[in-house]
Amino acid sequence: MTLPRIGITLGDPGGVGPEIVLKAFAGEHGLPPAEYILFGSERLLRREEKSVGIHFDFAPAGGLKPSSSGTLSFHDLPVSSRTLKKGRPSAENGLASFRYFDAALEEARGGRLQAVVTGPISKKSWALAGIRWKGHTEYLSRLYPGTIMAFWSETLKVALLSHHLSLKAALRKIEKEKLGRFFHVLDRSLKDVRPGGFEFLVAGLNPHAGEDGLMGREEIEEISPAVKKARREGIRISGPFPPDVVFRMALGRKDRVVIALYHDQGLIPFKLEAFETGVNVSLGLPFVRTSPDHGTAFDIAGRNAASPLSLVEAVKLAVAFSKIP
Amino acid sequence: MTLPRIGITLGDPGGVGPEIVLKAFAGEHGLPPAEYILFGSERLLRREEKSVGIHFDFAPAGGLKPSSSGTLSFHDLPVSSRTLKKGRPSAENGLASFRYFDAALEEARGGRLQAVVTGPISKKSWALAGIRWKGHTEYLSRLYPGTIMAFWSETLKVALLSHHLSLKAALRKIEKEKLGRFFHVLDRSLKDVRPGGFEFLVAGLNPHAGEDGLMGREEIEEISPAVKKARREGIRISGPFPPDVVFRMALGRKDRVVIALYHDQGLIPFKLEAFETGVNVSLGLPFVRTSPDHGTAFDIAGRNAASPLSLVEAVKLAVAFSKIP
Repeated sequence: MTLPRIGITLGDPGGVGPEIVLKAFAGEHGLPPAEYILFGSERLLRREEKSVGIHFDFAPAGGLKPSSSGTLSFHDLPVSSRTLKKGRPSAENGLASFRYFDAALEEARGGRLQAVVTGPISKKSWALAGIRWKGHTEYLSRLYPGTIMAFWSETLKVALLSHHLSLKAALRKIEKEKLGRFFHVLDRSLKDVRPGGFEFLVAGLNPHAGEDGLMGREEIEEISPAVKKARREGIRISGPFPPDVVFRMALGRKDRVVIALYHDQGLIPFKLEAFETGVNVSLGLPFVRTSPDHGTAFDIAGRNAASPLSLVEAVKLAVAFSKIP
Repeated sequence: MTLPRIGITLGDPGGVGPEIVLKAFAGEHGLPPAEYILFGSERLLRREEKSVGIHFDFAPAGGLKPSSSGTLSFHDLPVSSRTLKKGRPSAENGLASFRYFDAALEEARGGRLQAVVTGPISKKSWALAGIRWKGHTEYLSRLYPGTIMAFWSETLKVALLSHHLSLKAALRKIEKEKLGRFFHVLDRSLKDVRPGGFEFLVAGLNPHAGEDGLMGREEIEEISPAVKKARREGIRISGPFPPDVVFRMALGRKDRVVIALYHDQGLIPFKLEAFETGVNVSLGLPFVRTSPDHGTAFDIAGRNAASPLSLVEAVKLAVAFSKIP
């Protein structure tokens, strides 16, 4: 059996990324067998080891044993500056985390990685470094315009029709052709992930899903027609359901994914129900990309206080999704 | 000590209202001492008794002992038609539930009740009966234009800036003067409910609360100025916070109320976190009005399957809020 090759980036050097990567691989977290490759600077990880109290016997480019079977190797991207600071955004941090991400992406696009797990970056650091993408997802969206942002946990699975847009701009994306394309990309990208597949539940936009047009007509004019058409085309999809009901319908169901029509419609329930173990997944790419569902947590960085659980889940999900034939 | 007088309406005769009222008063739910007055038809409740297996020794207008101290009496509003049907909306049901509500309101407006607990009505039944208000809240809003819809539980407390409007129409209510008035009505109506008072957390509108204007400017132009002004005027209020963070900030905190800017922003998290014990409260009225946070549940009506827990919480909250001097 060939093991999947999974790239893991350390994220912003000033945040908790390096710490949670160390903790994830040092702890007994039941990581599945894979060829894991860390993208980051060795010097940075050495410095981090001291504060976390974990020592890894690194052998760049292979050799290190993770806690489970498989291998853990290192793709060293030396940090040019010695001025990396813990606990706050900076141009140096932004440049470093961008290089880690970019190098991992290059490997993935070349088919040498099946998945990339991205450590948390700071949008502010990227901006300070003059990087014109707001974050990982925006960068991926440029390379792959159909990229879908989804959030995944045992408890709840949510895919977002749009993400980093003002609510007013997000409303303009609720249009039947756009919805139809979205349904198909989502369905295709989840095709072989789970035996039996997934069922998609579409949230309405308005209170009570509009209540037959009494409170908004998007359900009647855009959402319902798109759902019906997708169903005729063979997708297991239903809705629109009242937004304050649909998440309860999917809660605890392994085979159900809620399609949320704007960022907070999906993220409010997801962060309440799956805070510690939530994983961010980018779908619609030729490889898998996951990341923990939290940020750099600058306020606790360098204090050995961060939990690796969300990253562990992100790694597990990356491996599970990599089994796509 | 004078006991508060609490009116309780049976709601739609075809729904679970009569059943949960019987269960609430027959069970050991620790209802606080009060003068409870049921608004409904005796014949209806008699019929319900058989299916639930509870027998109450009714004495219209006083005499019946509830499970706790205090009194339980009956305000009989005979149903004119014998055609009331269980399990579906009808004009007769709509007319009956409207009369129960209207009679209780009249008592409350005359100062003879400190609070009204409303059993679930069917908007469809009201429409079939030709009643021009969509529901309880809309009727109250006509009498008292500043009425605020709020949702209350031990776990989470949420007040809605607007409720039964399309999302597009709700966006138009996010305007600094309107927000300012809302903050003051909310603050006044909760003034003496809790020693130490409440702290209000305002949700943002856009993802990440706009992230300094990168994704929408409502936070900068409307919400922030209104919050700052209200704070200068002595209200304990802060925000706007990212919508996917603010509910976690209030979760489990007895002294925090989240101000949600539209129906589903508040109801999605509330229904996830407080489904069984959630209570709907109307604030900004000269009396208190609460109701269980569920509908008529026509699908299970008449099957002795409904839980009275949400109604019990609504009654308890009505009594607690009635202690306002």
